[in-house]
Order: sequence, then C-alpha cells, then structure tokens
Amino acid sequence: MVKILILGAGVMGTALSVPFTDNGHIVHLVGTHLDGDIIAKLQAGYPHPRLGIPVGERVTAYNYDQLSQAIKGVDLVIIGVNSHGIEWAAQALSPVFSADIPILVVTKGLAGDGEKLSILPDVLCAHLPNGLGDRIQIAAIGGPSIAQELAARRHTCVMFTSTNQTLLEHLAGLARTPYYHIWTSTDILGVEVCVALKNVYALAVGLVIGFLEKASKAVNDAQMHNLAAAIFAQGMWETAYLVDYMGGKPESVYSLPGSGDLYVTCQGGRNSRMGRLLGNGIPYSQAKAEHMPNDTVEGASLALAIGQTVENMIHKGDLDDIALPLLRTMIDIVCHDAPTIIPWNRFFAKSV
Amino acid sequence: MVKILILGAGVMGTALSVPFTDNGHIVHLVGTHLDGDIIAKLQAGYPHPRLGIPVGERVTAYNYDQLSQAIKGVDLVIIGVNSHGIEWAAQALSPVFSADIPILVVTKGLAGDGEKLSILPDVLCAHLPNGLGDRIQIAAIGGPSIAQELAARRHTCVMFTSTNQTLLEHLAGLARTPYYHIWTSTDILGVEVCVALKNVYALAVGLVIGFLEKASKAVNDAQMHNLAAAIFAQGMWETAYLVDYMGGKPESVYSLPGSGDLYVTCQGGRNSRMGRLLGNGIPYSQAKAEHMPNDTVEGASLALAIGQTVENMIHKGDLDDIALPLLRTMIDIVCHDAPTIIPWNRFFAKSV
Repeated sequence: MVKILILGAGVMGTALSVPFTDNGHIVHLVGTHLDGDIIAKLQAGYPHPRLGIPVGERVTAYNYDQLSQAIKGVDLVIIGVNSHGIEWAAQALSPVFSADIPILVVTKGLAGDGEKLSILPDVLCAHLPNGLGDRIQIAAIGGPSIAQELAARRHTCVMFTSTNQTLLEHLAGLARTPYYHIWTSTDILGVEVCVALKNVYALAVGLVIGFLEKASKAVNDAQMHNLAAAIFAQGMWETAYLVDYMGGKPESVYSLPGSGDLYVTCQGGRNSRMGRLLGNGIPYSQAKAEHMPNDTVEGASLALAIGQTVENMIHKGDLDDIALPLLRTMIDIVCHDAPTIIPWNRFFAKSV
Repeated sequence: MVKILILGAGVMGTALSVPFTDNGHIVHLVGTHLDGDIIAKLQAGYPHPRLGIPVGERVTAYNYDQLSQAIKGVDLVIIGVNSHGIEWAAQALSPVFSADIPILVVTKGLAGDGEKLSILPDVLCAHLPNGLGDRIQIAAIGGPSIAQELAARRHTCVMFTSTNQTLLEHLAGLARTPYYHIWTSTDILGVEVCVALKNVYALAVGLVIGFLEKASKAVNDAQMHNLAAAIFAQGMWETAYLVDYMGGKPESVYSLPGSGDLYVTCQGGRNSRMGRLLGNGIPYSQAKAEHMPNDTVEGASLALAIGQTVENMIHKGDLDDIALPLLRTMIDIVCHDAPTIIPWNRFFAKSV
C-alpha cells in the first residue's frame, strides 16, 4: 500500500483515484483554487459533479490550502491539473515537495517560449526551485482515456512513459487493474507530443460537425465522414512530423498516444463542441466568450500556447514551412479569428 | 475527353462516375451478374438504389453480357467490383481486353494462397491471360471514401497509387475536381495493405458497439470509447507491421490509406453492423446467415481470404507470432466462430 497525492480534482485527476484505490492504495485528492465546489461536494459524500461517481473510502478530498498537510508521507504525486495549471502546480508544490517523491503527470500540452517547444513534464521540472527538477523522477500518462469511462471501470488502455524504466514498472504496477491496461514506453518526447497535438487535431476534426450543419442537405443524406477522415489523417501526418522533429519515435504515433488518443478525442467532448461552433462560422473569440466561457478547450489552449512559437520556428527555418498546414490553420483560427478554410492543396506535402 | 469503362455498378464503382463525368469524360458503367437490378433501374432513369442519386447523362449503363460492346474504344478500365469479384473481373475482361488500356482498381482486399499474401492489383494481373498482366499499366485508389458522399460531391481525399508515376499523374488529372482531392503515391504495396486491413480492424472496432449493448449500463452513463480507441490503435500498430513486412512505407500508414481510411470505416457501414452482432455474442456464421445473408462484409471477407495463409506464415516463421494478435483474433472469430475476447495482454508487443 502506498500513499498518493493527486493534485487537481477535475475529471481526470479524480478518475485516476479509482484504479489506485482499487489496488488498495490511499489517495489524497487536492483540488486547485478552481475546484472548491468539487471538493466541498466530495467531502460531503456526494458524487463528483462532472464524473458522476462518488470517490471511494480510501480517498480523502482536500482544498489546495491544505496541500502541506495532504502531502505528508506520500510516496507519489500525480499532476492532474489542466494545461493552464502546470506552472501553478510547480509553484504550489515547491514549498512542500522533496526530491525523493516521484511525479506522474496526466496533464497534456506543450509550451512555447517563442523559440522552442517543450513537453509539460519538462516545464514542470523547470519551474521547481533549487534544481529540484533535475533530481526528481518523473513520468507521464498518455493514451485514449475518457475520464468518465475510467471512473466507471470501463476498459482503458494507456501508456506510462518516462526515461526511467524502473520507475515505469513501479508506477504501472501500482495502477494496473483488470480494466486499466498499462503499457510502458521510454519515448516520453514522442508520447507527450502526440497526446498534446491530439487536442488541436480533434478540434480540427470537430469543424466538420459545423460544416455539415451549415451545408445544404445532400440529396442522398450523405454526411461528411470523408472530410473528417481526411483531416484526421492530416493530423496523424503532422503529428508524425512533429514527433520526429522533437526526437520522438514513430511507434508512439501509430499506437495508443497518437492514433488511439486522437480517435477517442474525436468522439465528443469540449474540442468537438468548439469545433462545431467554429465550423458553423462563428469566430473563435466569439464562440469562446459567448458559448464556452468557463470551459477549458484543450485544443484551443494548445494553439494559444504554441502558436507564436510555431510561427517563429517556421520563420527561422527550424520547422519546415510546408510540414504543418493544418496546425497553422488551427493556430490562425484560434489566435487570429481566421475563417475555417481547409488548406487541401497543402495537405500531405512534407513526409517525415 | 476520354472514355472510361467501370466494371461493377455497386456504390463505389457508380460513385466514381461522378468526378469523371463532371470533368467531361464518358463512362460506360457495366454491372456484374449481381448488378442486374441496379442496371435496369439506371437504364430506366431511376436513381441508383443504394447510392441515392441518378447517374449523369454522360453515363451509359450496361449489363455484363454487353461487356464486349461497352469496352470498345475505351481509354481506361476501372475495376469497381467487391473483393470476391476480382478473379471474375479478370476472367470477364480477358477475351475483350488489350494491353494498351490502363487499369485503375478500386476493389480493396488481400489474397492468400496458403503461403503468401498478395495485393489485389497483382491478383488481377496474375489472372489475365497470355502474360497480359505483365504488360498492362495498373494503378489503384485508396483512402477514406464513403461512396454516397463522393456521389453527393462532398469533399473526399484519396491516394492514387501505382509504381508508374506518369500513369498516376495522368489518372489523377482525369479525376481531380474541386471536391475530389487526389494525392499520388508510388507505394502501391503500402497503400493496398492499409486499405485492405482497415476493413478487418473496423470490424474489430465495431465489436465495441455490441459490447456496450450487452454490458450493464454504467452508473455515470460512461460509454466504451476508450476500448474502441485502443482497438483502433492496435489496428494501426498491426497495419504498420504488415505494411513493413510486405515492403510498403510507413507514410502510407499515418496518412489517407491507413489512419484516414480506418477512421472513416469505423463511422458505420457493414463492418460496423457485423461487429455489433459479434460483440453481442452471436457467432459469426449465425450472424451472417441470419442477419446479413446478402451483404458483403469486407472485414469478414478479408479474414476468410487470408486467415489460413496468415496462420501458415506465422507457423513457418514468415510472420512474427506476436505481431498480429488482433488480426488473429478476428480470423478466429470469423473463420472458427470463436468468442469475441480481446487479447489485451498481447497488444503492442512487436513493434515495426
């Protein structure tokens, strides 16, 4: 039995408590400053409002101002905040953290500093004080995992990734259950690039829902799956390019982190909802402000986080200017309210 | 303006007449011996019964016994039969065909002779008489293309493939329209392996619809997208292995023929319908006989066409025995009425 702190009480952070507690481990679930209502509900014994299940008796819910108490004696910290919260998480942990506690990151995203792209485990380490980030053991989770399904113990297959294989085996052993199937990969760069990009490409696939609503009905009721599939394929194609550029491996692209996670993210959720609004012709800033003001749309967040950096890198020749037409289109749509025009003639130009 | 013969008046063969005739070309659409009713409808001016649109005035519909008349003066033959019809097509063409007419194959599948696997353009050539198959120019089409959408002029992105780049450019030029977006690839092996395998892996993803129906409802209404996505990813993984084994290129896997075509095939259709029945626990032979006796389920057809050969190749060591657990499971389900048990512990074992 180990003691685990999960930072972030959103759907994914909370859902992860299920396999760990099913294995007999103890979870301290610490909400962020945005999770106050959730923590209050859980403490009162109600189900998680967005996950639809109560947490188990091995889970204790804490508010973030109780972090120093909640972290006492824990053997593992899981970062379950959203992509906007990764620096906050580093700052929150800094006063209370020690280098002998491994970290497992579930947050997905990339960061851009104007010149280069970084994966979130590296961003987290860079924001820990006193060189702590160089000494800690860090791993991440990628792969198709809708939180509600994991919480309901539906079969879920994921990849645990780290450069440290011993750590991987240890963490996978803590979390593996008959429904939570875990593989391990030392390709943390490839896995993290895939699972970040899937959000923006799922947003792109989601455009088609809006295109279909806006289009006149076909005489034979034909939908637009061909179009969605072509965008899906271009997403995979660009993911393969960027994984290769960042030093990742192709097998991450055509396994759980790449194809699996993009597939599941296209089945619905906030990226698809935003994609539908954009495809209907509503500019991003208006769609966000009027229809989804309180939702984190991870695909849009990624475009905002890396948009300028990607354009700078292309300008400098670090990234090939013909390799990423769909990503650039999505950056234009999200960062500059550009219209949703699919750049067919630039698809599939630059192979890995 | 060129004259084109399309052999096979099913949905895909007929839908292909739309971009060609929109470009001013003439199409002779010749039904197989199974297409009599369709040809009669088209000749009487009715819409294609399964496609939901009438053919254009540049299309003339013929029954197969008029093939020798219909082929006179044509510049291109398109093979639009289903996978069961490829040898029949070779035999039907043999008496009337000449080596200077290029062939474009839309039929998807693989053949197994007990010892090795072959792509269908090679099977077609092998069944033409007098060494004709060695002299003809042959190309194929792969990529996500639901026929009803192409016929309705919805955006559709495909890959034309051949070892002959000049032929490719010529054929793409004949068919390219503002809605029919065509890329070219000389990786005919990779493209053909991808577009054949997508049927059996879409059948596998379709199992999940049945699993969901059979399972007790989750307390939080969670579905089983994680499971479907993991199967999708394993399908991509095995496709990458088999494409590599056959001598194809990885870029076919993560572009239109691989990821795009698998994605679109999972959106519905006959593989999904059969997958649902199997996932509900109905043995394949019963599901086929009682529920889909008159439907060609291409995923099942592929399993039947290559099942014994794949097992023989694994037994001989030609194929790695840990590389294709999902394909082998689907072969067992279709060829031997095996129960639908997902072999999690054998997933993602052998990388390319």
